[in-house]
Formats: sequence, C-alpha cells, structure tokens
Amino acid sequence: MDENCIFCKIIAGEIPAAKVYEDNKVVAFLNIAPTNNGHTLIVPKNHSIDMLEDNDKDLAAVMKATKKVGKAIMKAVSAGGFNFIANTKPAAGQVIFHTHFHIIPRFDNDGLKHWPSGKYEKGEIESIKNRIIEKL
Amino acid sequence: MDENCIFCKIIAGEIPAAKVYEDNKVVAFLNIAPTNNGHTLIVPKNHSIDMLEDNDKDLAAVMKATKKVGKAIMKAVSAGGFNFIANTKPAAGQVIFHTHFHIIPRFDNDGLKHWPSGKYEKGEIESIKNRIIEKL
Repeated sequence: MDENCIFCKIIAGEIPAAKVYEDNKVVAFLNIAPTNNGHTLIVPKNHSIDMLEDNDKDLAAVMKATKKVGKAIMKAVSAGGFNFIANTKPAAGQVIFHTHFHIIPRFDNDGLKHWPSGKYEKGEIESIKNRIIEKL
Repeated sequence: MDENCIFCKIIAGEIPAAKVYEDNKVVAFLNIAPTNNGHTLIVPKNHSIDMLEDNDKDLAAVMKATKKVGKAIMKAVSAGGFNFIANTKPAAGQVIFHTHFHIIPRFDNDGLKHWPSGKYEKGEIESIKNRIIEKL
C-alpha cells in the first residue's frame, strides 16, 4: 500500500467507492466522473504505478475480472459493447498513478468518436518495425 | 483458424504484415492505419471474436506481450506513453472480429483528446452499482 495513493485507500476501505466486484487480486468500482453510465475501473490491489510495472499474475487477474464485470455492466446498463482502456504514463492521459483499466460501456450512436487513422509513407512502416524489434 | 478472418490469415503468414513480436500464443504487428506512428495490434493466435470470448491463458499472454512490446515501441518512436485499448462489440467501434488490443504510442501535446467525463445525479451511482452486482 502506498499511503499517498487514492486507489490504495479505496482498496483498503479508507475512502468510500461504489465497488461492484472484488476478488483476492482485483477490485472494480464505478468511476465517479463517467464517460457513460456504468463506466468502471478495474484495479489490481497491489500498488504499481502503471501496467508496465505490474506483475503478470495481477494482470491476468485483471483480464479475468474484466470479462466477468464487462458482461455484467453491459447487461446492467443495456450497453451494446465496451471499450477497455489503460492510459499508461502522463503523455497518454494517465492522472492516477496506480494501475487501472477503464471499462466504458458503449451504445449505438452515443456520439463518442475514435481517434483518426493516419497513413505511412513508403518504407516508413518497415523502418519503424525494425526500430521496435531492435528495442525488444 | 477462421478461414474468413484477416487476422487469422496474418497469423498464418498468408497475408503480409509488419510483425514486431511473436510467441507461442500472441502476435504483434503494426496497424497500417496508425493513429500515431508505431501503433501496434497485439493479437492472440487462437481465433476468438472478442476479449469476452477469449480464454484466460491467451489474455494473460496478451498482457505479458503488451508490457514487452509497449516498452519497445516507446523507445523506438520516443513516445512518452501509450494507450492500451480493446474495442469490444460494434457499438464500441470494433470492426475486425478477431480479438485484438491496440497499443497507441502517445506524445506530449499530440492533440489526441480523451472522451469527456459526466456526472451522476443523486442516488444514480448506487442504483447502477446494484444493477451491475445483480448481473454478475
């Protein structure tokens, strides 16, 4: 537990939250500032800053919980689907530094737009591919 | 393998792709229509329609691969972070029906906006919480 972490305090029960699911590795609670009603955060109980720092067992538990909770959210709010999202590092919009995954229920024509797609110039995709492989 | 599935064909090597990573459960290749350069798809080799239908071992392997590939992408394109995203069901923007997860590298001030946050009316969060718990 990190004493300055709001999610650690929610996990410990020191700060109230609308918990919908809990097992030995993971907690899920409603986001109080939802993109759509039913927007839920899936959070490993162990403190880690982001998914890159979390251990494989916690992350496996996140996926298991997401399947269960995701289905229940869809039924509860009559959603057609959901987005499963982790924002890793501030450049990606991360604002709370305890690993968490968003389940955002989605509805046909709810007006939420995905980010635009770009295009690679000739040869660019191969050069980026090679740079990634080099860094693995 | 699903014979009509473009990702199954990429996994089988029948359609070319800029593969950056492969293990016994997972393949990763560059998205040809990237939101940002280095935008990669992490794909379980077993065919399943979406993450709700995929098995726990594949999903654990996805997370393990995402940590590895995500770090390499950040280094390769000098990104500050990344978004990890699965769009589950057409209402959520899913267009290819083989489970896949996006790693979208992000840069400070790259102009990509997150979806807006809403607010619950008094009592609404408890009522949604109870409905989700009922459906678990």
